Amino acid sequence: MEPKQLRALLRQVRAGRLPVAAAMERLAELPYAELGFAKVDHHRRLRTGFAEVIFGTGKNVADTVAIAERALAHAPAVLATRLSDAQVSALSRRFPGALHNERARIVRIGRAPRPAYRGTVTVVSAGTSDIPVAEEARETLAAFGGRAKPCYDVGVAGLHRLLHRLPELRRAAAIIAVAGMEGALPSVLAGLVPCPVIAVPTSIGYGASFGGLAALLAMLNSCAAGVTVVNIDNGFGAAMAALRMLRD
Amino acid sequence: MEPKQLRALLRQVRAGRLPVAAAMERLAELPYAELGFAKVDHHRRLRTGFAEVIFGTGKNVADTVAIAERALAHAPAVLATRLSDAQVSALSRRFPGALHNERARIVRIGRAPRPAYRGTVTVVSAGTSDIPVAEEARETLAAFGGRAKPCYDVGVAGLHRLLHRLPELRRAAAIIAVAGMEGALPSVLAGLVPCPVIAVPTSIGYGASFGGLAALLAMLNSCAAGVTVVNIDNGFGAAMAALRMLRD
Amino acid sequence: MEPKQLRALLRQVRAGRLPVAAAMERLAELPYAELGFAKVDHHRRLRTGFAEVIFGTGKNVADTVAIAERALAHAPAVLATRLSDAQVSALSRRFPGALHNERARIVRIGRAPRPAYRGTVTVVSAGTSDIPVAEEARETLAAFGGRAKPCYDVGVAGLHRLLHRLPELRRAAAIIAVAGMEGALPSVLAGLVPCPVIAVPTSIGYGASFGGLAALLAMLNSCAAGVTVVNIDNGFGAAMAALRMLRD
Amino acid sequence: MEPKQLRALLRQVRAGRLPVAAAMERLAELPYAELGFAKVDHHRRLRTGFAEVIFGTGKNVADTVAIAERALAHAPAVLATRLSDAQVSALSRRFPGALHNERARIVRIGRAPRPAYRGTVTVVSAGTSDIPVAEEARETLAAFGGRAKPCYDVGVAGLHRLLHRLPELRRAAAIIAVAGMEGALPSVLAGLVPCPVIAVPTSIGYGASFGGLAALLAMLNSCAAGVTVVNIDNGFGAAMAALRMLRD
Amino acid sequence: MEPKQLRALLRQVRAGRLPVAAAMERLAELPYAELGFAKVDHHRRLRTGFAEVIFGTGKNVADTVAIAERALAHAPAVLATRLSDAQVSALSRRFPGALHNERARIVRIGRAPRPAYRGTVTVVSAGTSDIPVAEEARETLAAFGGRAKPCYDVGVAGLHRLLHRLPELRRAAAIIAVAGMEGALPSVLAGLVPCPVIAVPTSIGYGASFGGLAALLAMLNSCAAGVTVVNIDNGFGAAMAALRMLRD
Amino acid sequence: MEPKQLRALLRQVRAGRLPVAAAMERLAELPYAELGFAKVDHHRRLRTGFAEVIFGTGKNVADTVAIAERALAHAPAVLATRLSDAQVSALSRRFPGALHNERARIVRIGRAPRPAYRGTVTVVSAGTSDIPVAEEARETLAAFGGRAKPCYDVGVAGLHRLLHRLPELRRAAAIIAVAGMEGALPSVLAGLVPCPVIAVPTSIGYGASFGGLAALLAMLNSCAAGVTVVNIDNGFGAAMAALRMLRD
Amino acid sequence: MEPKQLRALLRQVRAGRLPVAAAMERLAELPYAELGFAKVDHHRRLRTGFAEVIFGTGKNVADTVAIAERALAHAPAVLATRLSDAQVSALSRRFPGALHNERARIVRIGRAPRPAYRGTVTVVSAGTSDIPVAEEARETLAAFGGRAKPCYDVGVAGLHRLLHRLPELRRAAAIIAVAGMEGALPSVLAGLVPCPVIAVPTSIGYGASFGGLAALLAMLNSCAAGVTVVNIDNGFGAAMAALRMLRD
Amino acid sequence: MEPKQLRALLRQVRAGRLPVAAAMERLAELPYAELGFAKVDHHRRLRTGFAEVIFGTGKNVADTVAIAERALAHAPAVLATRLSDAQVSALSRRFPGALHNERARIVRIGRAPRPAYRGTVTVVSAGTSDIPVAEEARETLAAFGGRAKPCYDVGVAGLHRLLHRLPELRRAAAIIAVAGMEGALPSVLAGLVPCPVIAVPTSIGYGASFGGLAALLAMLNSCAAGVTVVNIDNGFGAAMAALRMLRD
Repeated sequence: MEPKQLRALLRQVRAGRLPVAAAMERLAELPYAELGFAKVDHHRRLRTGFAEVIFGTGKNVADTVAIAERALAHAPAVLATRLSDAQVSALSRRFPGALHNERARIVRIGRAPRPAYRGTVTVVSAGTSDIPVAEEARETLAAFGGRAKPCYDVGVAGLHRLLHRLPELRRAAAIIAVAGMEGALPSVLAGLVPCPVIAVPTSIGYGASFGGLAALLAMLNSCAAGVTVVNIDNGFGAAMAALRMLRD
Repeated sequence: MEPKQLRALLRQVRAGRLPVAAAMERLAELPYAELGFAKVDHHRRLRTGFAEVIFGTGKNVADTVAIAERALAHAPAVLATRLSDAQVSALSRRFPGALHNERARIVRIGRAPRPAYRGTVTVVSAGTSDIPVAEEARETLAAFGGRAKPCYDVGVAGLHRLLHRLPELRRAAAIIAVAGMEGALPSVLAGLVPCPVIAVPTSIGYGASFGGLAALLAMLNSCAAGVTVVNIDNGFGAAMAALRMLRD
Repeated sequence: MEPKQLRALLRQVRAGRLPVAAAMERLAELPYAELGFAKVDHHRRLRTGFAEVIFGTGKNVADTVAIAERALAHAPAVLATRLSDAQVSALSRRFPGALHNERARIVRIGRAPRPAYRGTVTVVSAGTSDIPVAEEARETLAAFGGRAKPCYDVGVAGLHRLLHRLPELRRAAAIIAVAGMEGALPSVLAGLVPCPVIAVPTSIGYGASFGGLAALLAMLNSCAAGVTVVNIDNGFGAAMAALRMLRD
Repeated sequence: MEPKQLRALLRQVRAGRLPVAAAMERLAELPYAELGFAKVDHHRRLRTGFAEVIFGTGKNVADTVAIAERALAHAPAVLATRLSDAQVSALSRRFPGALHNERARIVRIGRAPRPAYRGTVTVVSAGTSDIPVAEEARETLAAFGGRAKPCYDVGVAGLHRLLHRLPELRRAAAIIAVAGMEGALPSVLAGLVPCPVIAVPTSIGYGASFGGLAALLAMLNSCAAGVTVVNIDNGFGAAMAALRMLRD
Repeated sequence: MEPKQLRALLRQVRAGRLPVAAAMERLAELPYAELGFAKVDHHRRLRTGFAEVIFGTGKNVADTVAIAERALAHAPAVLATRLSDAQVSALSRRFPGALHNERARIVRIGRAPRPAYRGTVTVVSAGTSDIPVAEEARETLAAFGGRAKPCYDVGVAGLHRLLHRLPELRRAAAIIAVAGMEGALPSVLAGLVPCPVIAVPTSIGYGASFGGLAALLAMLNSCAAGVTVVNIDNGFGAAMAALRMLRD
Repeated sequence: MEPKQLRALLRQVRAGRLPVAAAMERLAELPYAELGFAKVDHHRRLRTGFAEVIFGTGKNVADTVAIAERALAHAPAVLATRLSDAQVSALSRRFPGALHNERARIVRIGRAPRPAYRGTVTVVSAGTSDIPVAEEARETLAAFGGRAKPCYDVGVAGLHRLLHRLPELRRAAAIIAVAGMEGALPSVLAGLVPCPVIAVPTSIGYGASFGGLAALLAMLNSCAAGVTVVNIDNGFGAAMAALRMLRD
Repeated sequence: MEPKQLRALLRQVRAGRLPVAAAMERLAELPYAELGFAKVDHHRRLRTGFAEVIFGTGKNVADTVAIAERALAHAPAVLATRLSDAQVSALSRRFPGALHNERARIVRIGRAPRPAYRGTVTVVSAGTSDIPVAEEARETLAAFGGRAKPCYDVGVAGLHRLLHRLPELRRAAAIIAVAGMEGALPSVLAGLVPCPVIAVPTSIGYGASFGGLAALLAMLNSCAAGVTVVNIDNGFGAAMAALRMLRD
Repeated sequence: MEPKQLRALLRQVRAGRLPVAAAMERLAELPYAELGFAKVDHHRRLRTGFAEVIFGTGKNVADTVAIAERALAHAPAVLATRLSDAQVSALSRRFPGALHNERARIVRIGRAPRPAYRGTVTVVSAGTSDIPVAEEARETLAAFGGRAKPCYDVGVAGLHRLLHRLPELRRAAAIIAVAGMEGALPSVLAGLVPCPVIAVPTSIGYGASFGGLAALLAMLNSCAAGVTVVNIDNGFGAAMAALRMLRD
């Protein structure tokens, strides 16, 4: 409740136009109103007309469809991530116009918002096996009104491929760098570009990658100053972090 | 080498004003010129008149002073971090005007640059024991031309203290959230503010904190979307990440 | 053997009414009688007319049904936990009146006991994915005569939802706080309520949650004094701990 | 602010006895008043006339004394834990009547509160090396108005010693079970007593104890239902948990 | 080659009855003969007429049967462990008289040897879920001529059950103690009996058991002197260790 | 671009035979030409007429075949590793002459190159379960023009078998030592031979092998000087390392 | 209480020679008498006239001396292990005849018992750095009446040294194999000898030995059947295990 | 014993020139002669006139000097590594001509051998803090007759510095790549050069480097084929591995 509104309310009480009981009812929300405001404001900025994200993991098919239906009642669009084949089929049947990104295991229902953030996020992947995570980031950006551009398969073992893309990388407003194995890509990139580099370790690797732990630790220990890191395989989280950085 | 320069060079060759051998010598630098350009540009943005950072850990006293002297020959200022008492004494004796932040174990020699980034970074700490890491972040920001503001001792076990500071937290351009123990602060914060939240786990904790591992994992697994994480106790890295986010 | 009984026995020996051999036989149990007494007493308090818990994991369908049948021969009810679909079907066919909680993967056969403990346990979950573990706790409490009340989906990233429930949370006799990911919920709760807070980490999370390790470590390192922790996903254990706390 | 108080305030506004500006000022505290109330109430219960706990670790001698002085200005007593020898000396010199427990590395300044909780907490230790942690728990209980009783050196390798103490253990309102090495004590105890068992792993052990990890994991995996666990070496936390369980 | 044989050989050379070339051929084996002797001797003692153990894991059905056939050509019996259902079926069809222990996932083909070791090994299990590992140990003992006796479901949370079996446990020549979860059983046992206690951690447990790591660490850190430990779930290895201890 | 070519180009410019615009176009590739040269040269040496390796893991059947087709358009052969049964079938149908190594899960399409490296690599395996990894190494060597020789099932528990092969092991130009479980083989070997020993830990083992971690750590800590290690189960990587060592 | 004694007691009651009250008093000890018997018997066997072991770690000098004095009041000798220099000095001053083993950090006060176990234990060490742990085992054996024989510096990287000692190793009643680094020694030994092999990992190693974890895991995963393992650096425990194996 | 020698011996026996007893004595060494031969041969190649390496860690000053004296009695030189200041002083006093490398913590006594291996090993370090480990490698190479060349401070965050050195790196016979933090250097290098790349992780790093674990895992997971890895901080081992690769 803004001070202005509170003052108006108290004046109504004094003037006898608002009964004490009614005033109390409205004031009962005060303790959380400030927080709620924060929440809504936050969402407005970050989501720009996009009301719901559904994480598919661990939800059965019927529930997934039902949640999507409920969400569309009060939101222009829905982004469903980490979907199984069965969940994808059910959502595609129920919402014929839905967009399906197979590699990212994502379905988007409803129209994408107009771009509402500064600049373009370049989503870089080290290997072809890292692309599903990179695509999760790219689709999330698109769904929330961010501009995204892929730059895939430029791992550090083939440095010439990476350097070939350098001019465009240096124009990015932010870079999401997706890599498994030894996770060196963000360190090399951050030495070459001035923009934020969000590192996403992937669980791609054999043996001593320990489900992405090797890449995660490498990224946290980057010798290039200013790299930040999100959870293993968390393309969604990287995209949300980029949006926080690029709101006006 | 810019296209313009290259064209001029070739025209000089064609015109016979530049011998082939001399042209070859200048072109020999081409493979690295593009990279060097990137590097310099990157530094200009990030460092704004600040040439050198010296990590004190593992360096002896004499070397530390000598490196600082060399750096000041070509740079307006030096930031020395993670210093021992002996290193601090030696630097203070050699550079009488140096600024010393005891809690951050940092010495800055030379004048601070004028602010050169968007907005203000609020550096938040969960407990009093986390303040040294928070101060490392704050001093690094100041030394590179960023605006910083502390907000300390607002851990999640005393939620009222945190919520009391909410209005100012919501005005931050970016938040660096420093916490040890269970590392919950960034998750709570990111649910309340729209700006980037850079989480810094600290090694503060007893027993099963395992040197900051508990807080690190908690932050990577944050239930609030868009939190990014840096290495344990790495206040310096968090500040450098914030500067990447706030350059114009 | 109570002193009274022992004295009576010895008097019978002295009076010649009990042969020495028969007395010896009865005394043979003495070394373990004290322990057995403890055991029974313990169970009487904790279980209040509930004789058996069957952990379904790793048992085949036939054995599960057979164990339940045997248990019901000397106990008014049975609680079977961590059941597969096949185990649930078999138990439901064999015991038509059995109660089945699908999310908790629990079947209860026989009537629930009357409440026999102080106060009400509020079972709080951070996310919707944590609900199965929370329901395991709630069903266990109900099956042993405890009063339980759910308060779900109040994770710390949406603090307003949690604070909205604060008045009822502060009335709880004990709180079971179930959370995966960064496991921050118990720390925030314990700063707001005076009652015992039993933290249950769940294996919910992606990548660096490492099967619930992240939440477990976070809870053990809680910055709020007096939080205690049980094993990952162990809703049953949390309920049993609550009952120990609330017996009169 | 209680509803009663709010109603009175609004009635004063309506009656014209309280100006709108003054009413607004008082209502400004509303968002955090509920939380603050919780906080204070919580402390009143848990601490019963004891205002401050000072963790000595990482604080220098001068700061430790200064914090203690400030705390005593508004609190009847102070409990300082995890103190170095130098901190102990300085506190003892400054506060001549202070009580010093050498094994627990604790100093208490000011009078102990009268017992204010139900029953007695028995603090059990497995070995003599675990006694410092047990004493930290015992002193904390005493300092906050809890009744505590030691039962030391009853590890499971000498079962007869433990069973010898069984009658008194069964009378405890709660048990704090402190053990390093294989951490089996709480599991054995919880099978013998009906009360809450709070397990405290210690860092005592050689080699593969990994700083208490072995005992911690053992306790979390206890085969006895209803054991809860706190952080390694955290006698203080165990005591605070016991107080939550035993408030009326 | 025994000294006696070597002397005879050289005398034959000197006497001209053995050509140098033939002598060289026989001596060529010398470097490894000593080792081979060790090997054979070792096996004779340990295996007493039992030639082959086949670990089923990772072998396909056809290979498993073929290896068993080859082994039976030069050995009186075969012990096949860690078998899948398909492997069991194939072996049972091919060798109609084979003995199958379903819980141990073991098939034994051929007759068992006569007992050839001192005393009896008591195989103790903490819970019913640990029985498959205990049975693997028991079957291995039987197959190699050791005497074995089961004592199951005597975990430390029900101490009276364990103490009830104490007289027979104290008569054992060696004890194999199989336990998952908190792994406390060997520690309690070793305080009660004078014989060797071989601890076998199992992977039974939820969440923070981490596949048996909790029990393994507990056993390695046993507060009872003289406990030794084998790999997780390794009932076979524990039996082989017991046989080493009990050969005459 | 070789200096010679650059000189020729500049001379053409000076002579007016090459317009400045055309020269610029050709020079535009310079920044990466040096790197590209490195790349090609590197591959020529390492691969000797073998253009592509396809890692099967995580690729669907159709993609696997398509990638192989594309690769064969510009390369004489293809090596496909870590293939599923379905991938093997599809490749065998599409390329009838392809060579299939079932144990190694490898398919090679096209003719093998002639040997192009110094000496012979002996591929040693400790147990029969380690053979698939050893075969992956052997097939990779063959496919890239290296000479390979197997020496399997010579683990350290049967030292006589290993010593029996010593003469041939000492003739190897390099040894790839593949072992799971306790991973001792490379340590023993490196004490017996003067050539490079490349250790490959495998994930073979029970319980506390933790997916090959035990063998990996053992190999890194080898008491024999000069052992080097590759990732768990990485027979391919070990072969590539051997080729680096044996090029002329 | 033996059955014979119990019968006598009951007969006295029946005969009226023992009042019921006196009989009850004597029977009150029954619940723990059986356990106490076990305990004493166990110790008699294991310790044979040796009453106390004092672990020096974490005890101050005065306490260490005082405990030794108390122990000698009722025991013929004391073994103090893991002593600091200060503890050694104090014990040597107080007990002039005490035996001090500097490498083992052990002091023995009082006379050693006569050998009371079967055979001889050979204590083998891989490197010279492992000798302190080996000596702890050897001194413990000597102090409890076991025969011990050292065989040091026979690590697997110099196999010829180990094989040179093979004849004597094969005569051992049990082997304690002490090794750090890759921990391969017990695996090689167990393939060569028929007796029990007790493996002791040491914390000797660099970097990825992780305080002995590498050797510990290697020993648990030994490919030689029947190796058992004790805690890292636990020479004392290995000796106690050997004594359990060699009592008659 | 070579066949030639054996034949001669047997012929002497046959001719009656060598008594059977004497022949037996000489043949008694046969089992280990083959091994010893291997050993000596191995050392001759690897060490080329260099008899002893002394690891200083854990040795006291007097022992260190004494071992060096003994070694010099039968060897032309000694290499002492990982020395403390006190050890360095004592060795320098005793052997005035000794060479001391302060950063490598190495002392070499006696003359260096002449180069005896193919090519030159380039020792590359990522940061200045990694130099001590790099120098340990370089000194070890020099001491054993290898040619070494440093290339320091070329970490991947400043790619232009690394690429600037590319021509000389491509001429190396082998590269030892020393890096802490994220350990990316070997991956980038191996993509650029055809020679063997031996990766040495260092313990340099903050927080989540976990003593070099991050760099170690990164190197094991290198996306560039053919990288091999040694233990953390093990410059000595890397040098010994390089010598194995470069012997003729």
